[in-house]
Amino acid sequence: MKVDGTPYRSLWWSTETQSLQIIDQRWLPHDFQIAQLDSMSDYVKSIKEMQVRGAPLIGATAAYGMALAMRQDPSDAALDSAWTTLNATRPTAINLRWALTRCRDLLLPLPQDQRGAAALALAHEIADEDVEINRRIGQHGLTLIRDIAARKSDGSPVRILTHCNAGWLATVDWGTATSPMYQAHDAGIALHVWVDETRPRNQGALTAWELGSHGISHSYVTDNAGGHLMQNAEVDMVIVGTDRTTRQGDVCNKIGTYLKALAAKDNNIPFYVALPSPTIDWSVTEGQSEIPIEERDAREISHVWGVGAEGKIAEVQVTPPGAPVANPAFDVTPNRLVTGLITERGICPASAAGLAGLFPDLAGAPPQSPRPSEA
Amino acid sequence: MKVDGTPYRSLWWSTETQSLQIIDQRWLPHDFQIAQLDSMSDYVKSIKEMQVRGAPLIGATAAYGMALAMRQDPSDAALDSAWTTLNATRPTAINLRWALTRCRDLLLPLPQDQRGAAALALAHEIADEDVEINRRIGQHGLTLIRDIAARKSDGSPVRILTHCNAGWLATVDWGTATSPMYQAHDAGIALHVWVDETRPRNQGALTAWELGSHGISHSYVTDNAGGHLMQNAEVDMVIVGTDRTTRQGDVCNKIGTYLKALAAKDNNIPFYVALPSPTIDWSVTEGQSEIPIEERDAREISHVWGVGAEGKIAEVQVTPPGAPVANPAFDVTPNRLVTGLITERGICPASAAGLAGLFPDLAGAPPQSPRPSEA
Repeated sequence: MKVDGTPYRSLWWSTETQSLQIIDQRWLPHDFQIAQLDSMSDYVKSIKEMQVRGAPLIGATAAYGMALAMRQDPSDAALDSAWTTLNATRPTAINLRWALTRCRDLLLPLPQDQRGAAALALAHEIADEDVEINRRIGQHGLTLIRDIAARKSDGSPVRILTHCNAGWLATVDWGTATSPMYQAHDAGIALHVWVDETRPRNQGALTAWELGSHGISHSYVTDNAGGHLMQNAEVDMVIVGTDRTTRQGDVCNKIGTYLKALAAKDNNIPFYVALPSPTIDWSVTEGQSEIPIEERDAREISHVWGVGAEGKIAEVQVTPPGAPVANPAFDVTPNRLVTGLITERGICPASAAGLAGLFPDLAGAPPQSPRPSEA
Repeated sequence: MKVDGTPYRSLWWSTETQSLQIIDQRWLPHDFQIAQLDSMSDYVKSIKEMQVRGAPLIGATAAYGMALAMRQDPSDAALDSAWTTLNATRPTAINLRWALTRCRDLLLPLPQDQRGAAALALAHEIADEDVEINRRIGQHGLTLIRDIAARKSDGSPVRILTHCNAGWLATVDWGTATSPMYQAHDAGIALHVWVDETRPRNQGALTAWELGSHGISHSYVTDNAGGHLMQNAEVDMVIVGTDRTTRQGDVCNKIGTYLKALAAKDNNIPFYVALPSPTIDWSVTEGQSEIPIEERDAREISHVWGVGAEGKIAEVQVTPPGAPVANPAFDVTPNRLVTGLITERGICPASAAGLAGLFPDLAGAPPQSPRPSEA
């Protein structure tokens, strides 16, 4: 999407420097910085410290990390080592493992002298696929927004609440939850987006920045406000993204998503989850018992970043000195609270049958019994 | 309660300066400052800018404001003017109107030369009553905590989630939601309190500061985390305060309370509201349609205060420049989500019959029909 009128993706390959360029998202929405990844430690840092974030973008970045590794040392040992190192950067995002395994499966049978070029070509392919998948998610989601708009005889905007940043910054382009919004806006449908702040990292500021850059009307609200807005009929639908979706449609997403799903249910507001199929973990059935939840650094909560005096990036501590902090980063929304899943192949119920109906080629046979927790 | 070993109330009268002393809560938990209120504009500022906050404390402060006015000019006109000026400082807190009206009702029949002394005596009485009411709330709430502790054969702590600061800083002493916690702790019951951050103003930092000062185990968490904690059986009960409770037990409290009540319901966790009876608005039945919700300054959300570089109080902007912000400050939790109300007279169901059973002297006859919105 556009930044100051210039079209960008969230990452791109520089043929000149033969390295990956990324938008360093740690400084957004206050400062627009490009970073270059030249070494495996650059890649690890980029994912771990959230220079790149969002499940699809992490997957694409990891694929370029595999390409870097193979161009430096195409041995089997290096391939294994790169898989292990990159897979350890973030425990929750399923796309990371999906992308890495896809790379390994392609590369392992190849002669070593072909691996570098093949890995880079595959990384490009994964990035381009992500763009196309998200475009299609947007096309399907657009039909839902169009239906709501058609029921508004007064032409008032369709009001959509979203949580976290499932925007183009979280993917290679378009975003997942935001793709229907961008396409509805471009189709001339009036929108207003309620943007959850999304503590602790305030990724809502990224969503607000994205939407503002594209000219979509929006309001930034605290995570606490969504229930009140829904009670008061200020929300027509909720669309969120997901970091991992189970085969029965349970949704693991940014902490707080579950609370919004409860409020949507309590107020009969449709709650949709937009997801590219690589986000589906077919090996997991029941999300709450089977998905380990990442506990992140206390400092994400105790300290808040932003623009301080004289326009400089600064941080302040909001907690009392030494106050104990707990920071679970994700939660699981059970499928009973999800109205539907918006995928690149269409919209389906959040159920095993719903997902298997759209993805018979991926669903395979259901597991015999729930897997033990990975925790 | 104690600060660095010294017992404090959140306000007290100085006979030496003949003025009210308050803890200026805008600087907590980072800096402990005392302020002195010498004029009506000091009083208005103290409530409006949240040097004092919390429904009971606002009520007590306003009573001292009436005393100041009567000591300066005991005329009927000055009495009316003080009532109107102080009542306009915060639109939601019912205690404010309750305290002001109580003062006016006492003072108006008195000869003017007695009003100054009578007003000051009444302010002292309102402050002392608040302390006693909260002590009793704690005694009743303690029985609930004791019951849960008795069911834990392993002696593990009773885990209580709370939202906002309904602590002693929000009252004259003890707090409302925290009073059962302080009394349980003092009775030797092991506790762990999950403290919601409570954006936008992060009043959870006050609660963490209070609990830490008193030696109660706690964790500061984002507002998003509570649902996940409840899903994973990490919470035994929820206790929150309230700014206004309707005669049928609907609870108007800090924005986000409704979301926690939904999560408690979804996970069969008891959800209690601790309230002094002055917080009950007997003139309102249905909270959601009848209580106007205060919309506060966007800057509360766009900017975050804390301790910055070199230990100085500083603020940072977290939103993109110019991003639109909406800031509803309260929400209404319908009585169907409330397990019980903890009052100074005991615990009752959140219903018209429950409240009338405990407060037959206050409940009176029910209104003939719902009142139109005050908005």
